[in-house]
Amino acid sequence: MAKEKKLVEAITSMDEDFAQWYTDIVKKAELSDYSSVKGCMIIKPAGYAIWENIQKELDRRFKETGVENVYMPMFIPESLLEKEKDHVEGFAPEVAWVTQGGLEPLQEKLCVRPTSETLFCDFYANLIQSYRDLPKVYNQWCSVVRWEKTTRPFLRSREFLWQEGHTAHATAAEAEERTIQMLNVYADFCEEVLAIPVIKGRKTDKEKFAGAEATYTIESLMHDGKALQSGTSHNFGDGFARAFNIQYTDKDNKLQYVHQTSWGMTTRMIGAIIMVHGDNSGLVLPPRIAPTQVMIIPIQQRKEGVLEKAFELKEVLSDYRVKVDDSDKSPGWKFSEQEMRGIPLRVEIGPKDMEAGQAVVVRRDTGEKYTVALSELKERVGELLDEIHAHMLEKARAHRDSHTYEARTYDEFKEIIDTKPGFVKAMWCGDQACEDKIKEDTTATSRCIPFVQEKLSDKCVCCGRPAKSMVYWGKAY
Amino acid sequence: MAKEKKLVEAITSMDEDFAQWYTDIVKKAELSDYSSVKGCMIIKPAGYAIWENIQKELDRRFKETGVENVYMPMFIPESLLEKEKDHVEGFAPEVAWVTQGGLEPLQEKLCVRPTSETLFCDFYANLIQSYRDLPKVYNQWCSVVRWEKTTRPFLRSREFLWQEGHTAHATAAEAEERTIQMLNVYADFCEEVLAIPVIKGRKTDKEKFAGAEATYTIESLMHDGKALQSGTSHNFGDGFARAFNIQYTDKDNKLQYVHQTSWGMTTRMIGAIIMVHGDNSGLVLPPRIAPTQVMIIPIQQRKEGVLEKAFELKEVLSDYRVKVDDSDKSPGWKFSEQEMRGIPLRVEIGPKDMEAGQAVVVRRDTGEKYTVALSELKERVGELLDEIHAHMLEKARAHRDSHTYEARTYDEFKEIIDTKPGFVKAMWCGDQACEDKIKEDTTATSRCIPFVQEKLSDKCVCCGRPAKSMVYWGKAY
Repeated sequence: MAKEKKLVEAITSMDEDFAQWYTDIVKKAELSDYSSVKGCMIIKPAGYAIWENIQKELDRRFKETGVENVYMPMFIPESLLEKEKDHVEGFAPEVAWVTQGGLEPLQEKLCVRPTSETLFCDFYANLIQSYRDLPKVYNQWCSVVRWEKTTRPFLRSREFLWQEGHTAHATAAEAEERTIQMLNVYADFCEEVLAIPVIKGRKTDKEKFAGAEATYTIESLMHDGKALQSGTSHNFGDGFARAFNIQYTDKDNKLQYVHQTSWGMTTRMIGAIIMVHGDNSGLVLPPRIAPTQVMIIPIQQRKEGVLEKAFELKEVLSDYRVKVDDSDKSPGWKFSEQEMRGIPLRVEIGPKDMEAGQAVVVRRDTGEKYTVALSELKERVGELLDEIHAHMLEKARAHRDSHTYEARTYDEFKEIIDTKPGFVKAMWCGDQACEDKIKEDTTATSRCIPFVQEKLSDKCVCCGRPAKSMVYWGKAY
Repeated sequence: MAKEKKLVEAITSMDEDFAQWYTDIVKKAELSDYSSVKGCMIIKPAGYAIWENIQKELDRRFKETGVENVYMPMFIPESLLEKEKDHVEGFAPEVAWVTQGGLEPLQEKLCVRPTSETLFCDFYANLIQSYRDLPKVYNQWCSVVRWEKTTRPFLRSREFLWQEGHTAHATAAEAEERTIQMLNVYADFCEEVLAIPVIKGRKTDKEKFAGAEATYTIESLMHDGKALQSGTSHNFGDGFARAFNIQYTDKDNKLQYVHQTSWGMTTRMIGAIIMVHGDNSGLVLPPRIAPTQVMIIPIQQRKEGVLEKAFELKEVLSDYRVKVDDSDKSPGWKFSEQEMRGIPLRVEIGPKDMEAGQAVVVRRDTGEKYTVALSELKERVGELLDEIHAHMLEKARAHRDSHTYEARTYDEFKEIIDTKPGFVKAMWCGDQACEDKIKEDTTATSRCIPFVQEKLSDKCVCCGRPAKSMVYWGKAY
């Protein structure tokens, strides 16, 4: 048992030091590793397999709404980045610059894309001539670079993987519709696949994307009570179209500017999965995203017939993503590993089970054990994977709801932020001065103006002037 | 008919100007576009969908051999790139350098990866301790950058997409086995999916990868008689392991160097598909890679029931990748478009067909028309897609074989290279001086020393000294 203990003891308790617990899981579940390039991470097989499943699920949902994938260059000439004023101000301070190609200095420096609005706009300006060319609903899967000062695996790194959708439409209404449509795709994906409940809303002007008319966001709450912006969808109106001169002739042969959107989700969702679902035994993966959903662990595997039976069960369970751990480690060690890696179900099969025609099935999320007749194993595993998903979503929702507070006075607000990690709902006058003051006083930021509004009072929680809307506030990653 | 003619006439004939024909297809089939970044292309939806299918097919084959996907940083610190001498000499002259991150100059410049051997070695040096950690069989899908002077869409661009596999093994024999295994995966993929026959062989020392002990290649022949290197697999021996100090303790507790391989295939295969299969009506896509395999084109679509029937047939054919062109263009225009885009089958359905309970099915590769009873449509389409694949592969093989020549004297060699585009098989002494002379005299290069050797004569075709092996020579992209 000494070895098993060592494996488990190597994780810091999440209540003791949440940041260290996070780092321990990233390392022990072999999700990512540090590289020789400061601030850039290596995504290891266990981490990348999660990303592949995220891609598969999201991409399918995108394509159902008419999205087409493309690939744009990774470099942006300085003059192109500078075309939209707000955008360049937002991004120029944090880009990496290529100044030399081969043995020659470049005539114009190129930045490594931090996001690709400018490239898509430049492309669309050539591509779009007539109303017949609209809409364009393009997306790309790629990596982007932002020269962050402090970094953490998955949550904030100098290079990360994402998808960025960029669309062009004939009318403002169509652009707004697409912006909301994609926000809903993200929200549904988070709940239905990652078992992460989200708050949908609009960002304040202070927090919106550089160059956007409106930014919509989904916000989720981590186990430590900090918020994570989990996906954003931007409506650009015709701002970029005017800067890049993207015009089309409408049915009446008049020149019109297009209306644009963009929307993205990143590898930071792997961080969200860790911080929403993980526990002190390691990662807990939602079944629909888990690269391995079921780990079969043979007990006394050297006894005759045990390994054969384990592989037979693998066949029986082949509708699911299933593996057999036939390594020469002890069962206890294998249990710890399966728990650390967050595999939703473990099936134990040994000589006694075989004799009784059954297997022991253990849930990763609750630790519950079930004795299941082998004849019912396939069906039961399917049911349990669905139950686990529902339970994880419910648990995360209950945690979020029990960590969502209401503040009606500024004293109350400050006390909650100070003592109770979570979201705080409070009224806001709409003035950025109050937002700035709240951030300065408490380090909390406005997470979003939720679509579902409540009227907690008539007055701004900060200045007492008439309130315009209710805002979710919180400390964030 | 005027419009249809215009569409078709816009392509240059391949016999008149092959390079212009290629560029025309890339543009008219909407595969890629030029960008504002010199030498970097935009891959448009029709091109990217081909790449997605290449990825899906290759990735599945990789995983069947135990490959796991990872993601490494896109940057390589200069000091890391310099660790293996041959490697840095091969790549340093053609990399892009990042010298500034955010507002600060970097302390050490970073190159944008031209290939990731050095990053994987650095990773493996930390990851691999014991024989239990071996083998490591990792791959990544990403983009790489090489600062080429002259570029052409898909064939040679400053940034391109690829996969790069990097493996580490306990023994030299295992590394060699993996190198050949992956070459075979590529060869099978080319024949079974892209309908492109390939020659498997080893590169000469002059042509091998910078830092490799041996480079294996698959070479294919384009319609104009030029060769295209279509995939390579490298055995590094322990060269990189020694440079990066990648050691493991074996079962006898002794320190050993690992043996490594790498292997890659790129978006240039889209260029190969164009140049092997295309014709004067446009692209011809092999059915197994075609994003759309069947285009249903309604005739007199405003007549009652025609569009409904077209969409009903779409349901019938839903085992295949099928679309209905219900745009308001004329049928003739739609035919030209389907041909230009290389969609393998077209199904025409109009009022007369409906009355007769049949549809007209037209093959893109041969132009053959079939009248097919609707009750047999599904089965017939499946058969035809298989027949098209087999026919395209056979046709490409026949073209290659009829453009493969043998030369026994240097005069003969030079005359063939000069007058007959294609491969030339000729004996070689093994001396690089002869390879250099042949290249200087004829611009032809050694494509590979094929695994299937023939003894055409005893003497080197160039110098007349005793021959060591038969080599495929040719002008190449």
